[in-house]
Amino acid sequence: MAPTRNACFVFLKSIESAAGYPVNGKTFAYDDSPRIDLDKAPLNGGALVKTLVLSIDPYMRGKMQAPDTKSYTDMYVAGQPLSNFGVGVVLRSDSTKARKGDHLYGYFPFQEYSVQSKGDLDKLRVLKNKEGLPWSLYVGVLGMPGKTAVFGWKEFSKAEPGQTLFVTTGAGQVGSLVIQLARRDGLKVIGSAGSADKVKFMKTLGASVAFNYKDSETKTKEVLDKHGPIDIYWDSVGGKMLDDALAAASHHARFIECGMISGYNGPGHPITNIENVLTKSITMTGFIVMDLEKKYDEEFYDEMPRLIKAGKYEFLEDIRHGLEHVGDAIIAVQKGDNKGKSVIVLADQ
Amino acid sequence: MAPTRNACFVFLKSIESAAGYPVNGKTFAYDDSPRIDLDKAPLNGGALVKTLVLSIDPYMRGKMQAPDTKSYTDMYVAGQPLSNFGVGVVLRSDSTKARKGDHLYGYFPFQEYSVQSKGDLDKLRVLKNKEGLPWSLYVGVLGMPGKTAVFGWKEFSKAEPGQTLFVTTGAGQVGSLVIQLARRDGLKVIGSAGSADKVKFMKTLGASVAFNYKDSETKTKEVLDKHGPIDIYWDSVGGKMLDDALAAASHHARFIECGMISGYNGPGHPITNIENVLTKSITMTGFIVMDLEKKYDEEFYDEMPRLIKAGKYEFLEDIRHGLEHVGDAIIAVQKGDNKGKSVIVLADQ
Repeated sequence: MAPTRNACFVFLKSIESAAGYPVNGKTFAYDDSPRIDLDKAPLNGGALVKTLVLSIDPYMRGKMQAPDTKSYTDMYVAGQPLSNFGVGVVLRSDSTKARKGDHLYGYFPFQEYSVQSKGDLDKLRVLKNKEGLPWSLYVGVLGMPGKTAVFGWKEFSKAEPGQTLFVTTGAGQVGSLVIQLARRDGLKVIGSAGSADKVKFMKTLGASVAFNYKDSETKTKEVLDKHGPIDIYWDSVGGKMLDDALAAASHHARFIECGMISGYNGPGHPITNIENVLTKSITMTGFIVMDLEKKYDEEFYDEMPRLIKAGKYEFLEDIRHGLEHVGDAIIAVQKGDNKGKSVIVLADQ
Repeated sequence: MAPTRNACFVFLKSIESAAGYPVNGKTFAYDDSPRIDLDKAPLNGGALVKTLVLSIDPYMRGKMQAPDTKSYTDMYVAGQPLSNFGVGVVLRSDSTKARKGDHLYGYFPFQEYSVQSKGDLDKLRVLKNKEGLPWSLYVGVLGMPGKTAVFGWKEFSKAEPGQTLFVTTGAGQVGSLVIQLARRDGLKVIGSAGSADKVKFMKTLGASVAFNYKDSETKTKEVLDKHGPIDIYWDSVGGKMLDDALAAASHHARFIECGMISGYNGPGHPITNIENVLTKSITMTGFIVMDLEKKYDEEFYDEMPRLIKAGKYEFLEDIRHGLEHVGDAIIAVQKGDNKGKSVIVLADQ
């Protein structure tokens, strides 16, 4: 068989947080020059996988910093494709872990086809998808962001009916699911997001207070003073909003630190209300979903696809078709311009 | 019987944190004018108690702020005696909860004699003291500070042999006990305190690295860069030191927020390294010992007096005799000039 195009989206040059947003064509770029022989590419005990969908997530910005940056995640390597959660289908396999036709969820390079090594296959999950749901959902509400919301809520919220949650980026995949989990548990929800449409979406999910933090006449502090104090703060933003949340926290409040996007593309806002951690006996926990997968994964994959099929949770997707749109999608997510969970669809099957 | 002097140490006027140290004679003052008739003072179901020892603790500064300040603790009331943990002996009683001659531990007004109401007696603990230890210890290593160290360590440290603890005010009653608990659990200890003597004391307790943070040539950040990363941070200081500790934390570090004295008498230092909570999955917990007493009190009073009698833990006391020295003792503690657990002894029996 003649070599097939194996386009990729490649990382070019690191960019520090303080230096602002990544730049398409400078930080990363689309490259359609690579080729692969789908019949002959050696597997060495692994499997050849065709990438179907790739997830675009806020945290990817952290992987674009200098190679020696200390973080919970490895940095992207200049000259190599970006990587993130995705779903792919097995075309050929040397392994019993993944058979031809299996759909795999896990960490993929941003490339149309890849050979997953024996070691890689151990980290990938074969998706059953008995419900026949779109594969894009498996990197959204049924993937890393969905798990982040569900696992984080189970592990850290200590939610009690009648308590108040303040959730940031409440229209995003994580935030919108957190709102629904909180409403199910009988909490009052205050949500913030960056547009009138997003505010409207949060209201439909049951947020009793929803506001647009980009509206210059709305001050987070005033909203929280009026509708708080808050028992749970779900943080995807950090900075000034975290500082306001500390001041508005109730005794024994839980701060679930899931992201701090306000500091990803510029200098972080210093925290001046940290003494509230002491005076209010606050517990603040940073977490990454991988640390909780062992505990909650099986339950999640047993339960959530069924609930999603049954329409028990609402969600929005912002899908772009084709690997060439990765750069725009990344930048939109960093600026909050996406309209739902950002996903790149490469192929339907 | 003729009325007896019933001197007190009275709170005069609130002083905000940002306004600096309290001032003797202005913030509070000794007053020897009150009198009490020890035979006839009405008990109304309570008990007449003679105060033997009173504790002087860092957190008392927080109670000197304006009456409407939100905190975990009530503010002192102008015109009323200060109050804090103490030990007293019952002179007369109307209650079965406390009999004549019983020694009581709990929250006392800073006054030579007081009538403890029926409700007050429910909150006081009758001390057995089978070991015949000095009563002053029951407000120190066997009182609130001792419990703070032991309970906080048990509840939040998740200590594992070979890990590294960084403890601030490591020569104080809480810090010095934390060092010993950590050493017993096989941890490496980095300790900071504010004098050469205190550094020496920390070394005798087993700290492998001990430094004087007031020494202008020693930078906390450099010490932690060299001897960290740190798995557990025991914070009694807050501010810049907390910020340095965040930068030097290991993955999954535990930050035990026990005090933030650097912000009690001046503006707090803003925190610029908070993103480490996220990137390192740090858990930061503020706590007060009262919330853990139900869980650990009985075990503590069963075990610790025996261990102290047996010389298993080292500690230092800084005792002043007479209620008139309360003001100086409070200010010394705020400035870190005390040489051990600060206690006011009013009477030996």
